[in-house]
Amino acid sequence: MTRRALVTGVTGFIGGELAKRLLADGWHVDGIVRPQSDTQDLANVAGLTLHVIQDSQDLTPLLAATSPDVVFHLASLYLAEHRPDQIGMLVQSNLLFTALLAEAMAATGTRNLINTGTAWQNFETNNYRPVNLYAATKQAAEDLLLYYADARNLSVITLRLFDTYGHTDKRRKLIQILIDAARNGESLDMSPGDQIVDMTHVDDVVAGFILAAQQLLGTRFGKPKAYYLSGERHSVKALARLVSDVLNHPIEIRFGGRAYRAREVMGPIVPSSDATLPGWTRKQSLQSYLAAFVA
Amino acid sequence: MTRRALVTGVTGFIGGELAKRLLADGWHVDGIVRPQSDTQDLANVAGLTLHVIQDSQDLTPLLAATSPDVVFHLASLYLAEHRPDQIGMLVQSNLLFTALLAEAMAATGTRNLINTGTAWQNFETNNYRPVNLYAATKQAAEDLLLYYADARNLSVITLRLFDTYGHTDKRRKLIQILIDAARNGESLDMSPGDQIVDMTHVDDVVAGFILAAQQLLGTRFGKPKAYYLSGERHSVKALARLVSDVLNHPIEIRFGGRAYRAREVMGPIVPSSDATLPGWTRKQSLQSYLAAFVA
Repeated sequence: MTRRALVTGVTGFIGGELAKRLLADGWHVDGIVRPQSDTQDLANVAGLTLHVIQDSQDLTPLLAATSPDVVFHLASLYLAEHRPDQIGMLVQSNLLFTALLAEAMAATGTRNLINTGTAWQNFETNNYRPVNLYAATKQAAEDLLLYYADARNLSVITLRLFDTYGHTDKRRKLIQILIDAARNGESLDMSPGDQIVDMTHVDDVVAGFILAAQQLLGTRFGKPKAYYLSGERHSVKALARLVSDVLNHPIEIRFGGRAYRAREVMGPIVPSSDATLPGWTRKQSLQSYLAAFVA
Repeated sequence: MTRRALVTGVTGFIGGELAKRLLADGWHVDGIVRPQSDTQDLANVAGLTLHVIQDSQDLTPLLAATSPDVVFHLASLYLAEHRPDQIGMLVQSNLLFTALLAEAMAATGTRNLINTGTAWQNFETNNYRPVNLYAATKQAAEDLLLYYADARNLSVITLRLFDTYGHTDKRRKLIQILIDAARNGESLDMSPGDQIVDMTHVDDVVAGFILAAQQLLGTRFGKPKAYYLSGERHSVKALARLVSDVLNHPIEIRFGGRAYRAREVMGPIVPSSDATLPGWTRKQSLQSYLAAFVA
């Protein structure tokens, strides 16, 4: 029996990789995109059906038409630091859209939701303390979903992510900046570099989403759960050394050439064993990821 | 030295009474209203300055111009049960507006915020469990405010309210329905009536808001706090008896003539002593409130 998935944020890095994995596994996959979304990278993904949805649009007809077994909610507006004029967009993308999605699921008897959170909901503590307003909207979204779980019978697992990486990532993140510097010989100004980063390969993240979905499909609904997908940990300095070693090229870095960010996460929380998605283990390593760049 | 207050929700029952009390106590009071707000009841309130603010408008100029010592945030969209097409308004009123208010406070160095929550954030438990989506947005708003407190130095106390009553309440709530029935002899169809209601007179609520403000003014900021203002408790049946007794008129009620509401709050949580606003005690009683209707 073919499983049906609805993926939001399908034009993003993780959403796109998840959709491809689900299709390869034999799922039927629908994706939600916005009118302004760049869908070029998805044009060649055989079998993927895209639905264009306006902001604030009632999602009930789409849920009724697609009747997914699982909704994977990856759509999000990410802002490390927001400007005042971006608050409306943050609330719209991360709160209103999440509520509209859950409401449409409840209205159509669509039960299973995998939601996406961030380890930044936990600045230096296992309790809620947001690094930034983005992380606060993620916590707030979980609180809205608790209503839909408790009063409207949705089954919800939130996966809280740390940093992620992979070949198709187009975000200009630290790992790619280091790889480019090793290959091009450009010098970098960086922070003092003692902060710890926690990195998970997108294949492992995608495996986590699918594992969580299987857990929802295999059980009656209960309380919403939030799990972390925590990966390899290195200081930024150690990461730079690793990239340099594997790619066998020195990287010229001025550590301390830039200041730490305000509210820099120096040591991300270490999830307790019951806060890690049951059954999930990291399989990919940065070492082998980097080795592929040598060839 | 004259204290300056900015009150949102000033056209509402509690906001209006709070503004009058603050003015009587010698505060300078500014109020925020929306273009569609009915401000008729405030027209005769001497000294009150009203500012018309559009939805989603940047509040920074207003905060800069009024520079309040304390912001009392009473504005809220209350919906016991929402329709799907009202989700946008709930998010707009209870989340976006709260974030814009806090952002403008942070931008202008306005430090002290008294926020309003609801005991419905705690359906049958001291932990978060929302009775309805309205209560979920109230919890979510506290999540957003935690960011502003922790990262942007706001001092925040949230007062979580149960039921409130008072002569100027225009909402058609249970107490007024019972009073009217006792006076007019009309018969009522009601739920079985075993649910407990927790009622606080608006004068006591207003005193709580001012006491909380004084606590913020007297201390350096710390973690956001949430306190309950819990009042008299009666079952609906006992409340009907009380009204009938004091007004000395029988009330013809068919208990069970209507069903309980979905997710009826049968026994509201009893706040622990450290969850009650320090120093606050209830002074008004339903008995004396009802006695005034006899004369």
